[in-house]
Formats: sequence, structure tokens, C-alpha cells
Amino acid sequence: MPPTPAEFVLPDPPVRGLFWEGSAVSGRLHVLDQTRLPREEVVLERRRCEEVEDDIRQLRVRGAPAIGVAAAYGLVLAARQILETTPAASPAEFATALGEAAEALASARPTATNLRVAVRRSLARRAANAPEPPAAPDALLAAARDLETYEVAACAVMAREGARRLTGRRHILTHCNAGALVTPGLGTALAPVYALHARGEEIHVWVDETRPLLQGSRLTAWELGRAGIACTVIVEGAAAGLFRRGRVDAVITGADRICRNGDVVNKVGTYALAVLCRHHGVPFYVAAPLTTLDPRTPDGDAVPIEERPGDACRYLEEGLLPEGGATWEPAFDVTPADLVTCLITDRGTVEDPDRARLAGLVAVAAHLQTDTTPGR
Amino acid sequence: MPPTPAEFVLPDPPVRGLFWEGSAVSGRLHVLDQTRLPREEVVLERRRCEEVEDDIRQLRVRGAPAIGVAAAYGLVLAARQILETTPAASPAEFATALGEAAEALASARPTATNLRVAVRRSLARRAANAPEPPAAPDALLAAARDLETYEVAACAVMAREGARRLTGRRHILTHCNAGALVTPGLGTALAPVYALHARGEEIHVWVDETRPLLQGSRLTAWELGRAGIACTVIVEGAAAGLFRRGRVDAVITGADRICRNGDVVNKVGTYALAVLCRHHGVPFYVAAPLTTLDPRTPDGDAVPIEERPGDACRYLEEGLLPEGGATWEPAFDVTPADLVTCLITDRGTVEDPDRARLAGLVAVAAHLQTDTTPGR
Repeated sequence: MPPTPAEFVLPDPPVRGLFWEGSAVSGRLHVLDQTRLPREEVVLERRRCEEVEDDIRQLRVRGAPAIGVAAAYGLVLAARQILETTPAASPAEFATALGEAAEALASARPTATNLRVAVRRSLARRAANAPEPPAAPDALLAAARDLETYEVAACAVMAREGARRLTGRRHILTHCNAGALVTPGLGTALAPVYALHARGEEIHVWVDETRPLLQGSRLTAWELGRAGIACTVIVEGAAAGLFRRGRVDAVITGADRICRNGDVVNKVGTYALAVLCRHHGVPFYVAAPLTTLDPRTPDGDAVPIEERPGDACRYLEEGLLPEGGATWEPAFDVTPADLVTCLITDRGTVEDPDRARLAGLVAVAAHLQTDTTPGR
Repeated sequence: MPPTPAEFVLPDPPVRGLFWEGSAVSGRLHVLDQTRLPREEVVLERRRCEEVEDDIRQLRVRGAPAIGVAAAYGLVLAARQILETTPAASPAEFATALGEAAEALASARPTATNLRVAVRRSLARRAANAPEPPAAPDALLAAARDLETYEVAACAVMAREGARRLTGRRHILTHCNAGALVTPGLGTALAPVYALHARGEEIHVWVDETRPLLQGSRLTAWELGRAGIACTVIVEGAAAGLFRRGRVDAVITGADRICRNGDVVNKVGTYALAVLCRHHGVPFYVAAPLTTLDPRTPDGDAVPIEERPGDACRYLEEGLLPEGGATWEPAFDVTPADLVTCLITDRGTVEDPDRARLAGLVAVAAHLQTDTTPGR
């Protein structure tokens, strides 16, 4: 019998990509600059909302949960700045100025829906609990801390549910980075790995380097290394040979979007792993917070695949493509629901394609996306 | 009905990776430096055997057929150098000196068996036809030209057999570089593509960039571009999404070694394509000269997979792996015979796993490998 979720005692995250230090009036947001990893570990101290907005835009902080939390703290800084520059602002003037700052934050990554939801919730809570401008920073800080706590708890649920399923599977393969760096907690796909390691299980992670942007080698290998977890970076083409020799016991990835039918949109290269899993009889797990499930997207075919021209050459030396050579550079791909052994969310799991359970999660997700009650 | 092989009129190769110019006494070998492609097209003029040996060692010329031909021409230069430095050498002294040069050439790439075979054949033919030292350069030049002609003809057979099977398939995906650059002719996997293009078929090639050494983006895209054939470079992770959307009509690759049971050893990343083909019902073709079939290797499990530490970082900017991070860097992988729709060689084809036909080819291959009759 695998352990129950409750049997997993969770460790602290191996790294904190961002955290607030101090009071609402004089505190600051610390941001680990992910664009400089693994070469340098640079922690930026942010005291202005525009800096946080730029951090989100420039991918210094990345990953849906982390971005939402960063924006929530950014609003604390915005409120403070408004009070400093226009101390006599009326409640209406203050609300307008704060709304402008919120809009700028929410627009920093246009496709990240949970960024917009986080900002909207913080504004609603401030309006309800602290209508007078001087009380705004404290109210916004409380909202940001609550969001952070919520995301940490979501990671913990995924950690335990995933760890239970991965118990006894020693060699885990992952793609891209869905670890502590993208959340305020243990991560999504990597959270179960941290839980297993804390329990003393022998575990080893194959890390797909993840072309073109190398999030696997740059970020996943770095954070696993910090946690003292054995890992080995491979080029994506090497994965299949590992499957053939029985050296992959499970694959686990995150998700950028989950469709209503359970199709998974994730970093390009994920679908190939799902096919390799099916061909070799290896389980394929996806771990993502339920906020990733978009009830308005019926299936993978309905998702326009974002292309990012120029990515193919990033991180490579110059001149490795013939001049004028054409490239196709999709950021994501679609894994059909029937290849997903288990979808692990913070609000429940779906084993194989189980329509009833999936429908239940879709209903919860729909509620989460439209719910703006301040208390959440 | 697809066209018969004879109906394909073949074009000239889009590029010549190496060619001899002039007589045996004053001529020289031209070598296109593949390590500088696609940034620069630099043709080196070689008048000394040591230069050719170094070109092979440094991968300025690469691909089994091209390496064998380069070495055969290198022997012409070696014979000339010996005659210049020791004009009074006895036939025995000359043979010893030439044998040393031959051994150096053959050792430049230890695993390329056909390099060794090419050198052995040239020596045997020289010994039989031109026992007197002064006649050696002419005899060796004739042997080299014959080998070149043989390889060009082998490419032509693969071009026609492959083109017949690919007719009507518009989007072809390939991996690594198995084109004109690796042979003195039209190539192996790309030869059918050139044949189809010459016939006016609309054809488009998806080029896997082929990590870690990027032979796809650096070399395949470059030579297809020279031939005016539409191609698009993709990261390997993007291939699966193309299959899912029905945008790959066939895959064709070369082979580094074919085992007695038909298993194919080729550039790492090939096996994943074969699995994707099987999952999506797309044909998977392998084109390689029969000299690639090694009758002494029973199957893929018997092939030690060469690892090349350090490759993972080549062509990348520095510092993209955490310090001390582990990597696994296999150069090749194994595709089981039952995933190969058709094996296309210059001496015959094997449709699906056809044991009888394969056994026939194995017998021919065994003869080719041990045959040192000078006339060949």
C-alpha cells in the first residue's frame, strides 16, 4: 500500500523566488532574478510597483502562481507610493490611482489569467475592508499574504497526492520547470519529488533540457541541486532511449492550461513524452493548481498555440541557422486527455479520463475564476 | 501508381563536400569545412596527407561515405609526399611508409568501419596494380575515383528507391544531417528529397535541429536551402505537435549502424521519431548504404552507446547548466526493426521487418566487409 497523503511530512521549499520582508509601510519585496540563473543568484529588493511590473514583464519572476503573488505585493507598493505623492487624495482619487497601477500590473503578462484574478481580488478586498486610503497598504499586504498562503497550501496538496502516486518509482523524468521557482511553495510537478525526498525515498530526476529556452537545465537542475536531489540533464532526444531501457519509472510535468475535456496545454515537448509513456507503459502525471483549468476552453484544438519567433536562437551561439532559414517556434503543445494517467490538482485528482470527476473539477474551476468575493 | 525508380532523373548534388582537382602528381583535394557552416563557406585546399587526416579527426569532413573517400584521396597525397622526401625508396620501404600513412588515416575516426575498409582497399589495389613506387599516385587516384563513383551510385539508388516511396508525401521530417554533405553524391536520407524536388513535386522538409550538436539547423537546413527546397527548422520537442495535427507525411533518417536483426543505430533522437510515427500511423524510413549493416552486431542491445561528455554545452552560451550538474550525453540511440516501415539501401530494400530479405542483405553486407579484392 502506498502511503496516504497525510503520511508525507513536507520540507521547506529549496528556494524562495520571492518574499516580502517588513511592514506594509516600510517593507520591500525580494525577487530572485530567474533570468540570471544558474550563473548568478541575484536577489533584487523592490520598493516600487513599477519595478515589480517590470520583473513580471521581463520574466525575472515567472510561473502563474508566483506572478500572481508578486503582483499582489506590487499593489502594496503602489498604495504606499500614492500616499507618499498625494497624501491628501480623496478615497475616490486614491481608488482611481490604485486601479491604474493594478491595470499596469495585470497587463505585464497578458495571457496569465490568474495574474488578473489575483489583482482583481486584492482590489476588491481593499475596497471592502479599508475604504480610507491610509489603511490601504495594510489591507493589501494582508491580501497578498493570504494569496501566498493559499498557493503554498495548493502546492502541499499536489506534493502529497503526487508523492503517493510516485512512491516506489525511482527514476522520474520531468520537462521544463514546474518547481519551487514558479510558486511560493514547493512547486507543482516537482512538489511530489520534494515530498518523496523528505521521506527518505531514493529518487533521481531526469531533467529534459527543454529547448529552446532551456528551463530544464537552467532552472530545474539548479533547484533540484539546491535541494540535494540527484538529477541528470539530458537533451530531449535522449529521453526515448531511456524509456527503451526501462530507466524511466514515471513522467510528471506541470500545465499551462487544462481544457474542459482534460487536454493539457504545456511547454512544447510535453506531448512527445506522453506518447513515449503510452508506448512503453510508463505513467504520465500532470500536476497543476485548479486555477489552470479553463472551463471556457473545450479542448486542445481550441487553443491557439502561441509562437515566439526568435526563441530558437536564444541561448545558442550566433550563426547556427542559415541566414533567412525558416523556423517554427511554438511555445506549447497539446497532450490529449487520454494519455494522462492522472491529473493532480489542489482540489482533487482525475485518474485516467474520468468524465464525472473531471466535470466536478470543471465546476469548481468555473467558480474560482468568476468568484471575486473579497474574503476568498 | 508511384513512379518506378527509373522515372526519377537525378539532379547534381547541391553541394560538394570534397572533390579532387588535377592530376595525381600536382592535384589537390578540396574540402568544405563543415565545422564553419552555416556561418562561412570555407573550402580548404589540401596537398598533404596529414591535413586530410586532421580534417577527418576534426569533423571538417564527416559522414561515413565522405570520410572514406577523403581518406582514399589522402593516400594519393601520402604517396606523393613519400616520393618527394625519399625518391630512392625501395618498393618495400615505400610500402611501409605508405602503410603508416594509411594507418594514421584509418585511426582518425576509430569507430568508422568503412574508413578502414576504404583505406585497406586502396592499399590492396595499389599493391596489385602498381608495385613500383613511382606508379603509386596514379593507381591510388584511380582507386579513390572509383570509390567516389561507387558512393555516388549508391546515393542514386537510395534516391530513386526512396523517392518512389515518398511520392505524394509532401511534408517530410528528418533528423540530423544525412545529405549531400556526408557523401560524394546526393546523400542518404536526403537523396530521395532531392529526387522528388527535381521531378517537380511540391515538397517541404521539417528539420529537427538535433541537439546537442545541431546538425539539423547547421547543416541540413543549409544544404536544403542551397538546393532551393523549402524547409523549416524545429526544436525536437515541436515534432510531436506536428504529428498530432497531421502535418508530417513521412519521416526519413540515415543510420550509423544497422544490426543483423534490422535494428537501427542512429543519432540520438531518432527512436523518439519512430515511436511518434507508429503512434500516428506515419511511415518511418531509413536510408543507408549497405556498408552500414554490420553482420557481427546481432541487435541494438549489443551496441555500446557512445557517450560524449561535454556535448551538451557545445553551441550553447556558457553557464546554462548549474555548476557540477550531471548530464548524460549519448551520441546515438537504437530504433527496433519493427518500427522501420522500410529500410532503403543501395543493394536492396526491406519492407517492414521481412526476415528473408534482411537475411539476404546481411549476406551481401558480410561479403562487402571482408572483400578486399583490389578490383571491387
